[in-house]
Formats: sequence, C-alpha cells, structure tokens
Amino acid sequence: MPAIEKVISATERERVVRLIDDHRKDWSLQQAFYLDPDIFELERQLWFPRQWVIVAHASELPEKGSYIIRNLFDEEIILARHGDGPDDIAAFYNVCTHRGSRLCTKDGRGRLMVCPYHAWAFRLTGELQTRRDLPEGVNPDELGLHKVPSKVIGGLVLCGLEPAHLPDIEPAAAGLTDLLLENGVGNARIIARKSYLTKANWKLVLENFLECYHCRPAHPEYFRVNGHVKVTAMRDEYKAKEWQEEIEAWHSVIGDAEFDKGVWEPGDLDTTPFAMHRKPIGSGRLTLSDDGQPVSCLMGGRTNYDGGENGFRIGRLSFLSAPNDYLTMFQMVPRSANETDVILTWLVDRDADANVDPEKISWMWDVTTVQDKKITEDNAEGVASRAYRPGPYTPLESQAAFFVETYLSQMRELITGDRASSKQEWGAPSQLFASPKATCNTRRL
Amino acid sequence: MPAIEKVISATERERVVRLIDDHRKDWSLQQAFYLDPDIFELERQLWFPRQWVIVAHASELPEKGSYIIRNLFDEEIILARHGDGPDDIAAFYNVCTHRGSRLCTKDGRGRLMVCPYHAWAFRLTGELQTRRDLPEGVNPDELGLHKVPSKVIGGLVLCGLEPAHLPDIEPAAAGLTDLLLENGVGNARIIARKSYLTKANWKLVLENFLECYHCRPAHPEYFRVNGHVKVTAMRDEYKAKEWQEEIEAWHSVIGDAEFDKGVWEPGDLDTTPFAMHRKPIGSGRLTLSDDGQPVSCLMGGRTNYDGGENGFRIGRLSFLSAPNDYLTMFQMVPRSANETDVILTWLVDRDADANVDPEKISWMWDVTTVQDKKITEDNAEGVASRAYRPGPYTPLESQAAFFVETYLSQMRELITGDRASSKQEWGAPSQLFASPKATCNTRRL
Amino acid sequence: MPAIEKVISATERERVVRLIDDHRKDWSLQQAFYLDPDIFELERQLWFPRQWVIVAHASELPEKGSYIIRNLFDEEIILARHGDGPDDIAAFYNVCTHRGSRLCTKDGRGRLMVCPYHAWAFRLTGELQTRRDLPEGVNPDELGLHKVPSKVIGGLVLCGLEPAHLPDIEPAAAGLTDLLLENGVGNARIIARKSYLTKANWKLVLENFLECYHCRPAHPEYFRVNGHVKVTAMRDEYKAKEWQEEIEAWHSVIGDAEFDKGVWEPGDLDTTPFAMHRKPIGSGRLTLSDDGQPVSCLMGGRTNYDGGENGFRIGRLSFLSAPNDYLTMFQMVPRSANETDVILTWLVDRDADANVDPEKISWMWDVTTVQDKKITEDNAEGVASRAYRPGPYTPLESQAAFFVETYLSQMRELITGDRASSKQEWGAPSQLFASPKATCNTRRL
Repeated sequence: MPAIEKVISATERERVVRLIDDHRKDWSLQQAFYLDPDIFELERQLWFPRQWVIVAHASELPEKGSYIIRNLFDEEIILARHGDGPDDIAAFYNVCTHRGSRLCTKDGRGRLMVCPYHAWAFRLTGELQTRRDLPEGVNPDELGLHKVPSKVIGGLVLCGLEPAHLPDIEPAAAGLTDLLLENGVGNARIIARKSYLTKANWKLVLENFLECYHCRPAHPEYFRVNGHVKVTAMRDEYKAKEWQEEIEAWHSVIGDAEFDKGVWEPGDLDTTPFAMHRKPIGSGRLTLSDDGQPVSCLMGGRTNYDGGENGFRIGRLSFLSAPNDYLTMFQMVPRSANETDVILTWLVDRDADANVDPEKISWMWDVTTVQDKKITEDNAEGVASRAYRPGPYTPLESQAAFFVETYLSQMRELITGDRASSKQEWGAPSQLFASPKATCNTRRL
Repeated sequence: MPAIEKVISATERERVVRLIDDHRKDWSLQQAFYLDPDIFELERQLWFPRQWVIVAHASELPEKGSYIIRNLFDEEIILARHGDGPDDIAAFYNVCTHRGSRLCTKDGRGRLMVCPYHAWAFRLTGELQTRRDLPEGVNPDELGLHKVPSKVIGGLVLCGLEPAHLPDIEPAAAGLTDLLLENGVGNARIIARKSYLTKANWKLVLENFLECYHCRPAHPEYFRVNGHVKVTAMRDEYKAKEWQEEIEAWHSVIGDAEFDKGVWEPGDLDTTPFAMHRKPIGSGRLTLSDDGQPVSCLMGGRTNYDGGENGFRIGRLSFLSAPNDYLTMFQMVPRSANETDVILTWLVDRDADANVDPEKISWMWDVTTVQDKKITEDNAEGVASRAYRPGPYTPLESQAAFFVETYLSQMRELITGDRASSKQEWGAPSQLFASPKATCNTRRL
Repeated sequence: MPAIEKVISATERERVVRLIDDHRKDWSLQQAFYLDPDIFELERQLWFPRQWVIVAHASELPEKGSYIIRNLFDEEIILARHGDGPDDIAAFYNVCTHRGSRLCTKDGRGRLMVCPYHAWAFRLTGELQTRRDLPEGVNPDELGLHKVPSKVIGGLVLCGLEPAHLPDIEPAAAGLTDLLLENGVGNARIIARKSYLTKANWKLVLENFLECYHCRPAHPEYFRVNGHVKVTAMRDEYKAKEWQEEIEAWHSVIGDAEFDKGVWEPGDLDTTPFAMHRKPIGSGRLTLSDDGQPVSCLMGGRTNYDGGENGFRIGRLSFLSAPNDYLTMFQMVPRSANETDVILTWLVDRDADANVDPEKISWMWDVTTVQDKKITEDNAEGVASRAYRPGPYTPLESQAAFFVETYLSQMRELITGDRASSKQEWGAPSQLFASPKATCNTRRL
C-alpha cells in the first residue's frame, strides 16, 4: 500500500544535495542513500515515476475481456485486454472513482469490472458505465478510471507511474521488439514465478545484480556453469585469454557480428535505457541448466542450440535472460528504504511440452537469487552500522559504480531542477570485461 | 498503549485547515484525512477527548466491590462498583500514582485495589489507602487515582477522556434512559462479544456504518432479512411504495406515533448527539435472525413481538440495535490512522434461558460485520493510492456525507479556535430514505 | 540493526533541557523520558557512547584464532583472540571496508576473516590482507577494519562504542580485577544464557533493578531466599534489628572488614562507576539456590562456603552476582525507546562437574527476572498513559532516585555542553538500607 506523500523540506533537500556533492567517484554511496526514509521518499516522488518497468507478460491476459491485478511500484493496478490486437491492453489504478475502494479484488474476465462496494461498473477501457445513482450535476464522463501509461513490447507489458514524468518509450520499443520476438518472448507462457523479498535498499540489490565480482565466492553453481565468470570474477590472465578465444570461436560459428544491440545507457532522465547483449555460456553447454542440457524446446523459431545466452535490459529495473530454450524475467521492486522485492518469472515456448520440469528450468536463477538475497541482506546490515564508510569499487564492479554515478546525477537534477550539472559525458566503464551478472551489459564491450 | 503526544506545528495545522477549506461538499474526504498520522494525532488530541462512548454494560460489574479493566480509546481504564446503587460506578485511569505501573492487571473484586509492583493500595473510590511508606512531606491525599468522567445511562456505562473537553451528557441521559429501559437494556446480560479489527481509518468505518447503499451488493444476508434495504439500496419506485405501505401498516398496529425519538444531531461540539429510530424488519419477521423467528425471550417487559427493530445512537461512535428479544452494542474504537476496532457485544434478558444459542443471536450482525471489515479494508487500500480523488456521495449516502461535513467543521473549529465559521445551519439529509444500516438515524425522516 | 542517525533540532533539544529543569527531585521522570523516540535518539548519540559495558566472557574465545560475533548496543561487533595472552582480544565493527557487508556471519576460528561477498580477507588484528583487486591509487592500509575500544577485566570483556567519548576504564580495571579473580570470574565457563526482551524503556528496567522495595510483593522466591529483603522491602524495626545482628555475626566470622569495595559512583561522565558489595544471604543458606544448598563446586580458590553473595557493578549497565559457587552476569541492552534486552549469563568454575544442573543454578535469577520483565512491562504501559504523572520515590527506592538524578544531570551536560551545571555534589542516598536488588550497591552503607 503506498504511503502518503511526505513533504520533504528545503533544508532536507539541501542536505541531500550536499551528500551528493560529497560523493567520491568510484566509491560506494554514503550511508544515507541506503537507509534514509527521506531519501527513499524523494526517490518515490521523483525517480520512480520516471521509470518504465515490466509489470506482466502478455500471456497473463489470454483473451479479450481478461483483466488482472498487478503491482507497479507501491501501487496496485489493473491490466485489461479490451480488444483482439496484441497491444490492446490498457492499465488503470485499481481505485473506484466513487469512494475509492479497490475495484477488482481478483483477476477475472468480463465485459465490465464491477466494484464490490456499491456495484459501480466500469468498461475495460475505463469509462464509468453506471448512470442512475449519480447525484445531480455530476458528469459520469469525469468519473472514468485513472489511466496508467502502458506499452506492450514484444510480449512484455511495461508501465510507468505518471504520464507527465515518463520518458518516451518508443525508442526502446523500436530497438527491442524484433530482438525479443526472435528470442520467442512474444510466444511464451509462464511456468513459474517466485518473489524474493530482500531486506535491503533497492540500490544494494541493483549493485549486486550489476557486478559479477562476487560470483566466485558467493555463487558456486553460477560460477561452475558460466564461462564468463572466469573473467569477471578472477584476475587470471590465462583464463581471460582462454575465454576470449572461446568468445571468438563462438562468434565465428553463430555468424553474428554484433554482440551488443541497443543504445548506450546515456545516464540521463530523458531516455529509457535498453540493450541486448550476447555471449556464449561456455564449455559446450547448450543452456543455463545444471548439466548444460536442454530443459525445454527451442524458442523463437530457432532450429538449433547455439550455446549462447541473450541478456536484455529494459529500463533501469527490469531484465530478461534468454538462453535458447527458456526465459527468466527479472523485476526489481523497491518497497521501502530497506526492502526490495525481486520477482523472477520463468517462461517457455507456448507450445512446449506440458511435462517440462519447472525445477530444472528455474534452477540456475533460483539458486543464484536465493544466494543474492542473503548476501545483499548481509550487505544492508553492515551498511547500517555507524562504522560504515563508502568503500572503493574495484574495476570488476564498474557497472555498479556507473549506476551509482548516474543515479546521483539524476537525483541531483531532480532535486535542484538544474539540468546543466548533470550533462556530463558518461565515460565507458574502465574495464574490458565488466559484465554484469545477468549479462545485461548496457554498453558495447 | 497510547502514543506520546506529538507536537503538531502551526504550519502543519494550517495545511490541514486549507485541506478542510478545499473540501467539496457531498464528496468524500481528501486522502490525507484517511491516511495522515498527523491528522490522526490532531483527532487524538482534539476530537476524541470530546466524545462520550460506551465502554461497558453495567452487568459487567455485578456487585459492590467488582472492578474491571476496559479500554477508552487508547487508554486502559478501571471501572469499579463502589456502592449498591445502580449508578455507583467510578472510572479511573489504570495508572498507579506511585511509579506509574498498571494498577490492575485483571478484573477482580475487593475492598481495595493493590498495585502488583510495590503494593500501594487504593480504595474503589480512588483514594490512596497506603500511608506508611510515603516520603516525608508527601501528602497522600494528592496521590489518589486519576478519575475518568463516567455516566451510567439505562444500563450502559459511558466514559470520556477529559472532563474539561466533554460536552454535557445529561441531555442524552434524560432523553435515552427510559427508552433504553423499555428495550430491556438495564436488565440484560452479555452472551457474546467479538472484536473486528479493521485496517482502515475510523472515518471509513463510520461512513460504511452510516449508509446502506452498499447493503445490496455487499450484504446478501442483511439484504434478505431487512425490508428497508429495498429502499435504501435500490432505486425501485415500486419497492419504495411497497415499503412505505408496510411501514404504515406496522405503524398503525403498534400504535406509536413516533418513529424517531431524541434530538437532531446538531453537528456541533457542545452536544452529545443521541437518538432512537424505530422501523419494522419487514416480511412478517419477528426478530433479526436467519429465519425471522425468536432467538431469546422478549425483553424490557414486552408481552408480544411487534416485528420492529429499535436503533440507538449514543454519541458519535456508539450504537445499539434492539429487535424485541436481543441487543447488539456497537463500539467503534480508532486505533491509529489506519486501524479501527469494531467491537460488538450481544445481550439478552438477564433471565433468558441458559440454553439460548449465541450463534443464532449474533448471526445477523456477525455476518454483516465480517463483510464490512472486508469492504472497508478494500476501501482503505484504494484510498491510499496516488490515484485516489474524492468521489461524489450519492443521495443514498447522505448520512455519510453529513458526518463528513460535521466532522470537518468540528475539526476546523478545534484547530483554529474559531467558533463562528462552524455555526452554520446543518440542513437535513437530502434523501427521504437515507437510513443508515444500523437504523440509528439521527434525524427525523 | 542501528537506525540512521536522526538530526535532533535545537528546538527539540531546548524542550528536553526544559523537561530536565522541571524535574522534581526524588520523583520519577516525566513521561517523555520513558517514551519519546527523540530522547532515546539523544541517548543513542550522546549517552550510550560514553558507557563501557560487558559484551562477553573471555571463555567465549577459547583459543588463539577464535572470533565471535556479539552485540554492543545496536551494533554487531567481532571479538577476535589474536594472541596467547589473556588480554589479547581485539574488537571490530562487523563491517567489511569494501562495500560494507557483514564480514562474519557466524562465530569461527582461523588466521583470516574472509568476507562472504567478495572474499576480501582481514587479519585478526584488523588489517586488510587482500591486495590484488584494489583499484589503483587506493591504499590497503587505510582499509583495515574499524576498531572498537575493548578491555578485558578479570575475565570480563568490556567494550564501548566510540574512543573519543569513553571515560578511562583503567581505574575500574585496577579496582576490580583482583576482586573478580578472587570470585573465580577469570576461571569460569558459561553453562546457560537467556535473553529477557522487556517492552519497556531501559531506565524503567534499571530503576527496577536498583531497588528492592518491590521484592516482597513481586518476588516471593527472592523474598524467601534473601535475608536482606526483610529490610529493603519492609518497615519492620524488629526485622531490621535482627538483620543487623545477622550481618554483624557473619562479618565477624568471615573476618572481612570491608563490605563495600570500589569507588563511590561520582555521578559524572568522566568516570566509569564500579563497585563490589558483600552481604550474607542469610538463614544459614550457602548459596542462592532454592534450598540454600550448593549447586556447583566452590569458585576462585575458596575452601569453604561463607554464606555470602558478592555483587559487582561494572559501568552503568552491567552487573554480576557472585555467591560462592556460581556467577550471574547481567547485561542491560537498550533497544528502542520502549524495548530493552536483559541478558543473563550463568557461569560455574571451569573445572566444575559436567553434571551440574543449569536449572538449579539459574533458578533464582531466572524466576526473578521473568517476574521483573512482567512488572516492568506493566510499569511501561502505565507510564504511557495520558494520566501518568511523576510519583515520589520512597526512601526504599533511593538508588533508583539517585540514578535518575545523575542521568538527568548527565543528559543536561551532554545536550547543552555546560559542565558547570552538573558539578553538584552528589549526596549519599538518604536511607541506610537502600540496597538494590542485585546487591550491587554503588556506595558504602
């Protein structure tokens, strides 16, 4: 349930700006950014409303008339499929315009959505259908549901909180739709979903997700399966060379000149960052499974396994991992200054065998995310100590460092209204193999 | 446990007054009134201390020497029967005057109440009995228990937080005592009590209680049993006419010219509103039970069933429903900005058969209150959304609208100290059959 | 987990100083001191960092290389035995200097402590061992663990939050070490530990511990076993005389001229108060057990039972009770404005029989502390009422009254920075037998 908007005083805002200005580049954030409820409130008022995030997969609305309840940050929203086209999905705040009750209390299907309190009825396109009980002088056309900006991209349903604050989503749609469809995202069905409530600030969760320096000590299974960790978590020149050769060999076989597609993350607020990054899993493994063997049928019209994983970033809080035969969708949902939901959804091809084993499919990312929850919570506990001081990001954590820099610049701009100060040129990360764990690299290597 | 009193700044108070002044008549409250802890704190400091509420039934103190612990808003109080007269009940804060411990930790009986911490003893009239341990110079007469204003009205024990702020209770006592006794309230015993902790602001709970527009969609059992809902929840002229005829027929049989007794709710702070309203249950039902058949013996000296229900309002947060053979007492207890206890107590005649079935007696209001808890909590969730905007009360919700208007006017007066602004004339509700669910209409029809 | 430091405004500080100045000597504190989160925050920032407290017994670090995680107020710290000497114990905040993760997540043993997040390794003396991953220009010598001030005194490990704020611990070490060793504290092992989370402000917990006026009404077992309660909880001159004779007889037998050792509690912030007090248990009982019979072997090189209990105070929040054959260590840990952990640890001689019965040994203080938890929580509830007013301490509560006076004086000094105002002469308690329950009298009788 959203908290009531708290007024953050000018004094408090100035304090935050000073904290931003005191930041030491390539060192972790000062304590307040990981703990302070007032800073979370500023993020809630200023930063989150500028982010497009995945809220559902289109298959969750199977037919015209379907409506479902989902979360968008701290809000409950209704997604409704009002037509037969693949994009005919509308989104509304789940709030009746009569006295403010939840309109839908469970997913359903129908021509109208009827409020359980006083039976006011709304169409799937949001208009109020009820007429006769209205008091004189009240115009029913002004009592339609409150719309939520939404966009379907290659089977992913994205929403954002407030139309006035959201950047244009069209470049991301143009850049990603075909790539998502090639990976079978538009033709998938969900076989598992799991939420990992992590007692840590969302930025600690994201920093963890954006670096793989910890993969060797903290993720034995991930380390064993993924060849790239030899590079991103180790300083072994021989291993790095070996991996480079593996990449080149793989590259020559799949015949794809581009490993990274999409834009660079420009670091500013006017753009929704998006990207796709390709890399081999390594060691002859066909997919991200315990034994490297397939766990479902090939997706997206592929005819053979290429041993690669495609990683997508869509906005700043949503990711997708796509080996050849299944998908893992990641939603990072800030809940409070010290709680973040990490929601994983696994999908396979719509026509995959009914007997595919969700355990095998979810294995890699489940075991890894359970571990990440633990280490991120340990991180959050330490960061709360009076002994915590910012520490240096190593070259292997350059993506996390980059995120922190852009975040601070964006917050400064949002708090002060001063654009100029943030119009710096964002340099590329300083390390060749600085690849985030989920392979959703936002820059060319 | 009460929270420590928070200082609400002048700026904050001005903000609330502006919110009050921005209110749109006959539309629901702005979001802050349903969520903001500061507004709840203002209510706690200013509004609640001006309300008399039911805290117990006199039968809970069966004999001289009985003392019981009850709640009065967020305070724990002791009620003690110190004499043989029906009104010889005193009330005290449950706080030892030595070091502040709870004095009583369970209900009991005796000549003295002895503190479990250091054994200081107090009389049932509040004086400190202990003498010898007192330090020199300390006057034991100044260490009596802190009194709570109390009043017994026709078997109901009412209290209020602070003598300085409470309106005169005598007019309510004069107006209601005989009516309560005629309904057997003074001669009753408790057979069931149940608390429905509702995660919603107390004003949402009260608005729900004060209108029956939702009774048809949300209360199938209540709708089936109570004839009046045909009118209050429907816009069917034929049904309305039918009901009017039923009322008139019933009226002619019971030979009672007055359906509503007591005062009008004047809407101001100097009066404790009270009222009684009579109406038939309808369709030949004898009482508010599943099959319409009696569930206990007749109360209050009645000799036959008249098929009616008498509804009482005592103050702004206590209600009583009285069909012919049992009573339901309602206490609405605000707990925090988003939690309200709704406590229901069922009573039958003191001499009723020991085998009366509490399930049958509590059925109507239990099933209805469980439903109300759910819909009010859904209301609270929606009201917390950033998409919530005040919506229009329909004519069928005029009592809720009236409560909201008087509440805002009272709060404005309390915050600003400005009486004039609130001395408007309160008009009657605009709708003939605007009867609140519990039939505790505060105005003549 | 520690809360982020909250800025307490000048206005708020002035309000607290006014409350201090309004204090009525020998009456309990005003409500805000028991409830107000802002005052707790001031204590957290100003008062707690000036207190040395027991955090462990040295036997919990059995050998070189042992490290354990313990709590110091709201902080998690690591204690590490880095050498073979009895005092070779170092303490660190449990925070990795890389990205702030918890460094140790469980007790262990080794040459290095390795962070589970990115595998940074630290020596048991705190230096960063890891070298090769560090970014250029970062000096590893500046990335050692954050030290916590620590001191081993006669087997007790004491720590304090911040070196800059702690008073000198050496006088306490000099004054107590031999006395503790004589009581076998240095040669003990733990056989039981139990935490009593008490929903009450820490000052209510301490006031309870510092007086025995409540022992008769609230502690039947303690009252039965301990002769001194006849005096501290009763006003019976005959009993007092009888007790005085018992003390004198005991005194002549044990041949010890001093019943109280150590300094007077000077009441100021520059000193760590410490003391030892001796008294007979009474009635021929040999130890603090249900039947007065031994529960383990004699400690500290004693050769026979003298029927006495030695009580130690070390600082303002740690105590130790020592009858002849076992020890009870008391840690009072403030958790929030209304929660306090009371942690009891029972120890016997290192070479005591493996079959000693922890139930028998912990009986006296367990039963008493369970009762104290209840009465202190009842006290906290009453103190939170709007009817609470400070009440008079009786002469039997002079130690509690004394604590309250010194606490207020210290807080005033800390908030205003004004030393002069607190440099009053602290008088002795006004009552001869004002002995706190745990016999840790801070003054000569």
